[in-house]
Amino acid sequence: MKTVFSPRHLGHSNQLELVAGAIVPAFEKPSRAQYIHDRIIDVGLGPIIGPDEYDLSSASRVHRQDYLDFLPTVYPRWKEAGRDGTALPFTWPTRGLRGDVVPEFIDGALGYYSFDAGIGFVEGTWDAVKSSHDVALTAANLVKGGERTAYALCRPPGHHAGAGFMGGYCYINNAAVAAQWFLDQGASRIAILDVDYHHGNGTQEIFYRRKDVQVINFHADPMQEYPYFLGHADEKGEGEGEGFNLNYPMRWGTTWESWSAALEDGCRKLVDYGPDVVIVSLGVDTFEKDPISKFKLKTEDFPKIGERIRKLGLPTLFVQEGGYAVAEIGVNAVGVLQGFENA
Amino acid sequence: MKTVFSPRHLGHSNQLELVAGAIVPAFEKPSRAQYIHDRIIDVGLGPIIGPDEYDLSSASRVHRQDYLDFLPTVYPRWKEAGRDGTALPFTWPTRGLRGDVVPEFIDGALGYYSFDAGIGFVEGTWDAVKSSHDVALTAANLVKGGERTAYALCRPPGHHAGAGFMGGYCYINNAAVAAQWFLDQGASRIAILDVDYHHGNGTQEIFYRRKDVQVINFHADPMQEYPYFLGHADEKGEGEGEGFNLNYPMRWGTTWESWSAALEDGCRKLVDYGPDVVIVSLGVDTFEKDPISKFKLKTEDFPKIGERIRKLGLPTLFVQEGGYAVAEIGVNAVGVLQGFENA
Ligand SMILES: [Zn+2]
Ligand SMILES: [Zn+2]
Repeated sequence: MKTVFSPRHLGHSNQLELVAGAIVPAFEKPSRAQYIHDRIIDVGLGPIIGPDEYDLSSASRVHRQDYLDFLPTVYPRWKEAGRDGTALPFTWPTRGLRGDVVPEFIDGALGYYSFDAGIGFVEGTWDAVKSSHDVALTAANLVKGGERTAYALCRPPGHHAGAGFMGGYCYINNAAVAAQWFLDQGASRIAILDVDYHHGNGTQEIFYRRKDVQVINFHADPMQEYPYFLGHADEKGEGEGEGFNLNYPMRWGTTWESWSAALEDGCRKLVDYGPDVVIVSLGVDTFEKDPISKFKLKTEDFPKIGERIRKLGLPTLFVQEGGYAVAEIGVNAVGVLQGFENA
Repeated sequence: MKTVFSPRHLGHSNQLELVAGAIVPAFEKPSRAQYIHDRIIDVGLGPIIGPDEYDLSSASRVHRQDYLDFLPTVYPRWKEAGRDGTALPFTWPTRGLRGDVVPEFIDGALGYYSFDAGIGFVEGTWDAVKSSHDVALTAANLVKGGERTAYALCRPPGHHAGAGFMGGYCYINNAAVAAQWFLDQGASRIAILDVDYHHGNGTQEIFYRRKDVQVINFHADPMQEYPYFLGHADEKGEGEGEGFNLNYPMRWGTTWESWSAALEDGCRKLVDYGPDVVIVSLGVDTFEKDPISKFKLKTEDFPKIGERIRKLGLPTLFVQEGGYAVAEIGVNAVGVLQGFENA
């Protein structure tokens, strides 16, 4: 299996986030990608190649154009306002407030285009975001070119980014852009399997009214867990998209037994859908020792995820999402890929 | 003029907020109220009395009951989750996310019921919030009892608190509760003049579909300034409330000349409305030296605000909102009150 990876993710580092009442270095840090990168080499998973440059034309079909135009301007505008450090929003257009007017000043615009205070920008953030997008599309192109699978070692991740909002360390929704790109290249139906601990609220929001992308999420119950405001079982899609969104919320403490039963059910629904390509939003923060998560998957479980996905018998693009127990993230993420390869 | 004041505001102290990418001690601090309190004594404005206890029955007519039930539980639940310091939300149900399901876990619930990261809770916050509510109603009762005016030295302030959300240092909307209380006591129409630098988004949201409370805001343009997502000139009320909401957004750098012209226009609209009582949401963060604001009102301008309001010839309740240049807040807030008294 080929891996696509860009060292440009390194420009997105030392950013801060607000969590539990304190500003802390973001859990989403460069070492995450480095651990995975090194593990790939250690186990000889396959070659690691750099990304090609892609324009944002597929991205602009899943994100609002004004949102994409905004992202590269954030840090320059933050500095223009006399600030340094991490650009972070601090006020948001929630329920009862207006969502139709984009404020001029950077603080308001940051809030307008986000849903949390974990979405920091530093000098190199946009470049890293763009490279992550390119990594996803380069890997997608490998699959389109006939590879059974490819791995996009994306950083920053993407599944919390919606059509017009960022959050949860995510800016451009790499998996969603890749899905759109496959469609733009002639595919009829794409399925996204999101196995990250957190609900892929951005991916759901993007495709909620569409039938050409089936979105299946296995995640911590939003009653208990971030990102809280989407991911309930009754969210099944709307309009043309009705029936093409599937949520499997699970409670804190969920182990492989019930998690894998949900995966099994989701895989059956995926087979019924009959997609041309499967995109896996690969988060490994379901791991029992993950510092910000509360599921109980063990290292030995991750290859079984890959095995099950391999049984679908479909071209499969893996896109890296979350996973924060830095020491083990490499073993677990690559474990999924090895499970797929060796099945 | 009598002032109502409670030292219980002191329990709400040392709380933190997120601003400009950093966690800092909140600008909304106990010394604000102390400066005003001391200035009242220095100039001999009149007696300072403590509040009576009021139940939340009027509050529950402007706030959602579940929101009011939530507020006292915040800090105990925060501690239950193993935290200390300041309870702060970090993720919010913005545009595109669900606003109909209240998460179980405290982090999600905090986000559900708020719109910013400047709404910290410490051990004594709820007691201070309740005392601030009582201060407003005690002062309202003085006006109902025949006093021409009274001053509620509320802390924390209230005008950013909506029916089901807190933010901008505000938890219970003291001015809105007082307006409701006057109505509950038999008044027909109440006008709220909000002269704070920031748009009173909570007050607007609460009364937006009602005609028994006219809400008039003079504030920094939400294109440039917090709270950003309400306060445009085209927001005039809806349904029965259409025509009873008036916004005067003004650009950074606004001086007394144009600010007072807006006040004049608003006062004419208020006279047309013919309220039984005027409630002034009294913020003095329009002051040229305010650390978080960008209007250019001078100390000599504040008494003229009081004079103009006095000319309305109506029973008038002053409710303290913002103002952060701590050394001058006493002079400027009391300046408005003296202008009213001496006109
Ligand atoms: Zn995650
Ligand atoms: Zn203010």
